[in-house]
Amino acid sequence: MAEPQTTVTPRATDYSQWYLDVIAQAELADYSPVKGCMVFRPHGFAIWDHMRTDLDRRFKETGHVNAYFPMLIPVSFLSKEAEHVEGFAKECAVVTHHRLRMAAGGGVEPDPASKLEEPLVIRPTSETIIWHMYGQWIQSWRDLPILINQWANIVRWEMKTRPFLRTAEFLWQEGHTAHATSAEAVEETTRMLDVYEAFARDMLAMPVVKGVKSASERFAGAVDTYCIEALMQNGWALQAGTSHFLGQNFAKAFDVTFQTTAGDREHVWATSWGVSTRMIGAVIMTHSDDTGLVLPPAVAPIQVVVTPIWKTDAEKDVVLAHAEKVRAALYPHFRVKVDARDTMKPGAKYFEWERKGVPLRLEIGPRDVAGDSVFAALRTGGKKFGIPAGDVVVGVTEALAAIQRSLYEAAVARRDATMRTPSDYTAFKADIERGGFVSVPWTDDAANEATIKEETKATIRCYPLTGQDDAQGKLCFYSGRPATHIALFARAF
Amino acid sequence: MAEPQTTVTPRATDYSQWYLDVIAQAELADYSPVKGCMVFRPHGFAIWDHMRTDLDRRFKETGHVNAYFPMLIPVSFLSKEAEHVEGFAKECAVVTHHRLRMAAGGGVEPDPASKLEEPLVIRPTSETIIWHMYGQWIQSWRDLPILINQWANIVRWEMKTRPFLRTAEFLWQEGHTAHATSAEAVEETTRMLDVYEAFARDMLAMPVVKGVKSASERFAGAVDTYCIEALMQNGWALQAGTSHFLGQNFAKAFDVTFQTTAGDREHVWATSWGVSTRMIGAVIMTHSDDTGLVLPPAVAPIQVVVTPIWKTDAEKDVVLAHAEKVRAALYPHFRVKVDARDTMKPGAKYFEWERKGVPLRLEIGPRDVAGDSVFAALRTGGKKFGIPAGDVVVGVTEALAAIQRSLYEAAVARRDATMRTPSDYTAFKADIERGGFVSVPWTDDAANEATIKEETKATIRCYPLTGQDDAQGKLCFYSGRPATHIALFARAF
Repeated sequence: MAEPQTTVTPRATDYSQWYLDVIAQAELADYSPVKGCMVFRPHGFAIWDHMRTDLDRRFKETGHVNAYFPMLIPVSFLSKEAEHVEGFAKECAVVTHHRLRMAAGGGVEPDPASKLEEPLVIRPTSETIIWHMYGQWIQSWRDLPILINQWANIVRWEMKTRPFLRTAEFLWQEGHTAHATSAEAVEETTRMLDVYEAFARDMLAMPVVKGVKSASERFAGAVDTYCIEALMQNGWALQAGTSHFLGQNFAKAFDVTFQTTAGDREHVWATSWGVSTRMIGAVIMTHSDDTGLVLPPAVAPIQVVVTPIWKTDAEKDVVLAHAEKVRAALYPHFRVKVDARDTMKPGAKYFEWERKGVPLRLEIGPRDVAGDSVFAALRTGGKKFGIPAGDVVVGVTEALAAIQRSLYEAAVARRDATMRTPSDYTAFKADIERGGFVSVPWTDDAANEATIKEETKATIRCYPLTGQDDAQGKLCFYSGRPATHIALFARAF
Repeated sequence: MAEPQTTVTPRATDYSQWYLDVIAQAELADYSPVKGCMVFRPHGFAIWDHMRTDLDRRFKETGHVNAYFPMLIPVSFLSKEAEHVEGFAKECAVVTHHRLRMAAGGGVEPDPASKLEEPLVIRPTSETIIWHMYGQWIQSWRDLPILINQWANIVRWEMKTRPFLRTAEFLWQEGHTAHATSAEAVEETTRMLDVYEAFARDMLAMPVVKGVKSASERFAGAVDTYCIEALMQNGWALQAGTSHFLGQNFAKAFDVTFQTTAGDREHVWATSWGVSTRMIGAVIMTHSDDTGLVLPPAVAPIQVVVTPIWKTDAEKDVVLAHAEKVRAALYPHFRVKVDARDTMKPGAKYFEWERKGVPLRLEIGPRDVAGDSVFAALRTGGKKFGIPAGDVVVGVTEALAAIQRSLYEAAVARRDATMRTPSDYTAFKADIERGGFVSVPWTDDAANEATIKEETKATIRCYPLTGQDDAQGKLCFYSGRPATHIALFARAF
């Protein structure tokens, strides 16, 4: 990706290539020499930094604290929860040695004398190590709840990768909570799902459907997996976050009990919940266009770029001074940058910042200086307009809010326009082919689910939390049996 | 550490045990089932969060941006820089497989079929992977400088560990910059050293000596290693941060050249610099006392604890209401907590928050409610005093500032009182035994340095940046040859 082309492949031509082009041209990421691992370049990483800051605040407001647990986990820990090891064993990076030695043919190699007695895996998720520690910390009801979050890197070995969406190493947060009752744990699970929904809506301008997974799509070791599902522009769904009610599974696997107020000993109830750098991919795919990256102002690394325009040296002095005045007015309310490079023409600068997804451009030429104003162009299009320099803070505030709102509304409209309710399997297949969410009455059945996935590549994204009453009295669109759920199907990343 | 004792071992009795007791009782950290890896408990991790936030701001103010590079590095990359591989090969965790399989005797084991063609190491530092990427990004002088920082976890396999100070996995930041000229790179190296010094002083209330390392203590692959050295209460030094001028070593190893403005191709100049969670250990050892943890307010997870005191239910309602009023006045200016637990007596609460290093306690009893005031107790001691409730923000601001200042002054005084200048090796040995920094005229000589280390366990902490002129005309205290430097020796963690 080191040498970006000058234009991106249009979405209609090749959606996958469009996604890679948008990333390359915005300099969000790069490939690395390690198969499946990516490099987060500064412009891409800054998006994550803004997500992290906002999420961290939301976690603290809901009573959580951060901690950090070891990345290396003894393999025997994974085995303690039967479904968990089944789910993760096949994608674990395994550390077997703790030293290198000079190799006979030059270079270095693992020193056989440093072979570990028990191999370690790099965490694919941290339930096991954390529940081992909770076993040391929890004695009685007084020690509950524990409401801990961790920001960490994760490794899940993937053969087929896609930047941000699926990589061997990724960054995420993982909440791990311990409770005295089932009800309290379930409440925590849905509370965090609500936090994710609000975050996606307010920060990412991304509407999501909240729901619960079918058994086949459940997290390995969970009783229930709740999720938020978003719709990308190609009509595929993307799971953007999950919140698991773990029941007492991990407490039993690690024998974590507590003394109740009544004096009994019971196993502790658990939740875990996480979102990852995959969210960056979701944002890119939700909003970007055939010119390149489009970012919601709330997470844009640069929200406003000021581009001075001049022809003569005398003009240059004047427009740069005006640009600096505008920048000083906007900072630190906004993330603002003045592009004063004299190695590029204005048009080339505009194009560069458009490809990088900067929501708002303020052009300043001699005429704007004379009028004591700026000329505003929105990344999302529309007619350019002047803002008096004295009103620039208000003007920028309103423009960014309008962009954030319009991106959200466009995403909602796109999703709703493609939400379909076919009445039989033939219509279902056609609707899946067209893209978008497909909502159907459904009788929970793993075998039928597998057949449909095999035949259409569509999976149950979730049983939405709202509207399940509609299943009553309906028949399953596929099996004809009395429906147990309203299911949302789609092809998914 | 799950069951802390009620008191810490006094420093004079057993300094090492004191350190472990302070950590355990403040619930800063815990041991993990993985040898050498520790768990950062919430109260300990919050200190790092505050450090990180402040450092990140300082890095951005000096023009740096964050990025993220893969944690897994091909072993062949390490070999490219000869000194680098020499320095790190013996402490690398090596990933050799990417999948587990069910083992015959139960449990799981690395799947032999998943053996990697080339083993990967978990980064012990990231120069190699980053300079590989810089090779893709740097073509001409227009691409320079690159000023990137990364927040990451690191693994350096250690046999003998100590919480925060030396652990197999730790957290840090690593800056990696690329420059067109040597002078610019050196300027960056010292700029970041200054940033670390200011951070240590302003946030950690910890005075440091800035200096440059002797060749034997240099980072593997650096031309010069600059450092900040702090003095702990037992008279040992602690390296709290380093900033390396890497010259063109990594650019040559990874063949990274750029086109100069004159049209030539030259190798790029580099720096790297980092501080780690070791800083938490430095803070603990600099300020804590025989009661437990003492923290500078700037990094204290809780700065103010409000402890309501009551005997009757009627009193309880009134003092809790008053405590809430005080909390509301202090929030969000300060990190404040009301301890309203009715399961503990006030004395026990005081002791708990003292052990946890909360700088300021505000007691509120019925008499304080009647007087519309609070009764303030500083963790650093002194007579308790009243603050009118209406002045509580000002009063707390002043009290915390006074604590921060007094901790810094005490640390400076301790360091200066033990700074010695022996005139010969006999006196030197006695001074090293007493503890503290020992400043001597010195002729740079690796063999003599090794002998002194062997005989006294003291190492050259640095050649201080200031006062080197004093070496002129002096003779080395050890060899009697004309001195090349003023060297600061000490035993060190």
